[in-house]
Amino acid sequence: MGEFELIRQFFAAAQCARAGQGVALGIGDDCALLQMAAGEQLAVSTDTLVEGVHFPFAADPRLLGQRALAVAVSDLAAMGAAPVAFTLAVTLPSVSADWLRAFAMGLDSMAEACSVRLVGGDTTRGPLSLTVTVFGSVPVGLALTRAGAQVGDLLCVGGPLGDAAGALPLVLGERRAAESIGKPLLDRYWSPQPQLALGQALRGRATAALDISDGLLADCGHIALAGGVALQIEQSRLPLSDALQQWLGEVDARQAALTGGDDYILAFTLPTVHLAPLLAEGWPVHVIGSVQAGSGVTLVDAQGQDITPAIRGYQHFRETP
Amino acid sequence: MGEFELIRQFFAAAQCARAGQGVALGIGDDCALLQMAAGEQLAVSTDTLVEGVHFPFAADPRLLGQRALAVAVSDLAAMGAAPVAFTLAVTLPSVSADWLRAFAMGLDSMAEACSVRLVGGDTTRGPLSLTVTVFGSVPVGLALTRAGAQVGDLLCVGGPLGDAAGALPLVLGERRAAESIGKPLLDRYWSPQPQLALGQALRGRATAALDISDGLLADCGHIALAGGVALQIEQSRLPLSDALQQWLGEVDARQAALTGGDDYILAFTLPTVHLAPLLAEGWPVHVIGSVQAGSGVTLVDAQGQDITPAIRGYQHFRETP
Repeated sequence: MGEFELIRQFFAAAQCARAGQGVALGIGDDCALLQMAAGEQLAVSTDTLVEGVHFPFAADPRLLGQRALAVAVSDLAAMGAAPVAFTLAVTLPSVSADWLRAFAMGLDSMAEACSVRLVGGDTTRGPLSLTVTVFGSVPVGLALTRAGAQVGDLLCVGGPLGDAAGALPLVLGERRAAESIGKPLLDRYWSPQPQLALGQALRGRATAALDISDGLLADCGHIALAGGVALQIEQSRLPLSDALQQWLGEVDARQAALTGGDDYILAFTLPTVHLAPLLAEGWPVHVIGSVQAGSGVTLVDAQGQDITPAIRGYQHFRETP
Repeated sequence: MGEFELIRQFFAAAQCARAGQGVALGIGDDCALLQMAAGEQLAVSTDTLVEGVHFPFAADPRLLGQRALAVAVSDLAAMGAAPVAFTLAVTLPSVSADWLRAFAMGLDSMAEACSVRLVGGDTTRGPLSLTVTVFGSVPVGLALTRAGAQVGDLLCVGGPLGDAAGALPLVLGERRAAESIGKPLLDRYWSPQPQLALGQALRGRATAALDISDGLLADCGHIALAGGVALQIEQSRLPLSDALQQWLGEVDARQAALTGGDDYILAFTLPTVHLAPLLAEGWPVHVIGSVQAGSGVTLVDAQGQDITPAIRGYQHFRETP
């Protein structure tokens, strides 16, 4: 038996590979078998993380296991889907039992937090990369797509933005921070929490949704393009964490919130009638702007003046047809 | 817009990304949405191909596109599933329009042949590798798993074996062959034809099935282990192509058939009662042995003598509990 066959058995024995709801046949055969309830559709998304591109060389394998799964599951949250299962394709330059144990520990803890089961995958030799494909369940007609924003809707996000971008110098070891600042930022980078419950609460309410992976301006550009509308963001309404503001100062914190990626917070458009009920139910809904006629994304100051050109690199993010 | 965003749009515009049966939402949102008919389960499998490990450096991108998809779809055939969709995660060191065009052409032709639709994926920068996740549909209770072989069943395969292994020196440019020999062997390596129709014809008939990817002996070991039975293979019954026998001679051709990988031909166990009807329907069913009490895989000669130890490397393939 080869070492990569041993790895397959290692993953097959992991906590997150045990049977779960919706999984008729798990790891170990030619295919896994998933069983949808009547009236449900299957949501599918694939994400690849490559060493040296999406995470630093020699990254902590436990953190990597957490993050690889969270990044993929976040796409289920963005569709309003309930998580069911995932497959993992892992390419490794060599086999280290310690690395695998730590990686599986991180994977398991995120799988537990997201209620998602490992049902298959592939293990190959080569430069380190991870491809996670996630499966979720969503009632027919209730999936949240990027299209559908209506003029007059509110533009909202599900939490503070920019923390993951703020964490980058810490991730890369370029700077150091006090524990009280560094820990919350690094947690947001290495262990993003997919907003699964919020996504499901938005079913039948939000008109468009996605998770912020490329940065708020870029991702709002996708919503504007898909819906044939313009989005206006009020700079003063951007939710920023205390840690990020202390770390970068207000101006750079805002820049991180607007253009930094990797937050995996939901952005969505909401008819005004749904705001009060969502807030009353305790969901983290932050109104940051509105949907208007036109195209593209505009940033305005407290006086309603267009300040989009003042954002560094903003032109990359004006996605118009 | 970055070059990798352009690649995403390139794939989104490919022939194989247009809508198809079972695909409620295709490429371009956070998730694709698949819709199963009532009484159907979703079969899922993931395969990764890494440059320099699973295919040679500087391989023809058109052939690579064909093969990457065929290898993954073959797992659907092995479960008796009907193909529906696939996702593609492609990691590329750099962007070449010519490479992408040729790759998409190969992908398209195999997608067309297999009736399968591209519904999503990811495009990242890094050392060349391809991860394909395939989705198929199979009626509840009719999926062909590796478990279930019964003592007294026939052991069968769906066609000649060893051609892909025989092609390897040609793939690597180590040897040359006449067109009449080289072409059929190279076709089997670069463009394996997943036995989808055969897999579906075996529903309710075969007691266990898989596709041969690691070599006949190794893969029969999986069936023996999963079913708690022994498999006996009669050497003289191994189907060998004329091209392979001319290329390697009979002894080495048999060795290739027994231990070479990459054939993607189905191997399955069949109650004897089902043999005649399958042959009458015209399916390519070759009986190569039988299921017996015990464990492991044994090769016997025409006189029934155990000749397993004479096969080079056979010990790797005796999978016993």
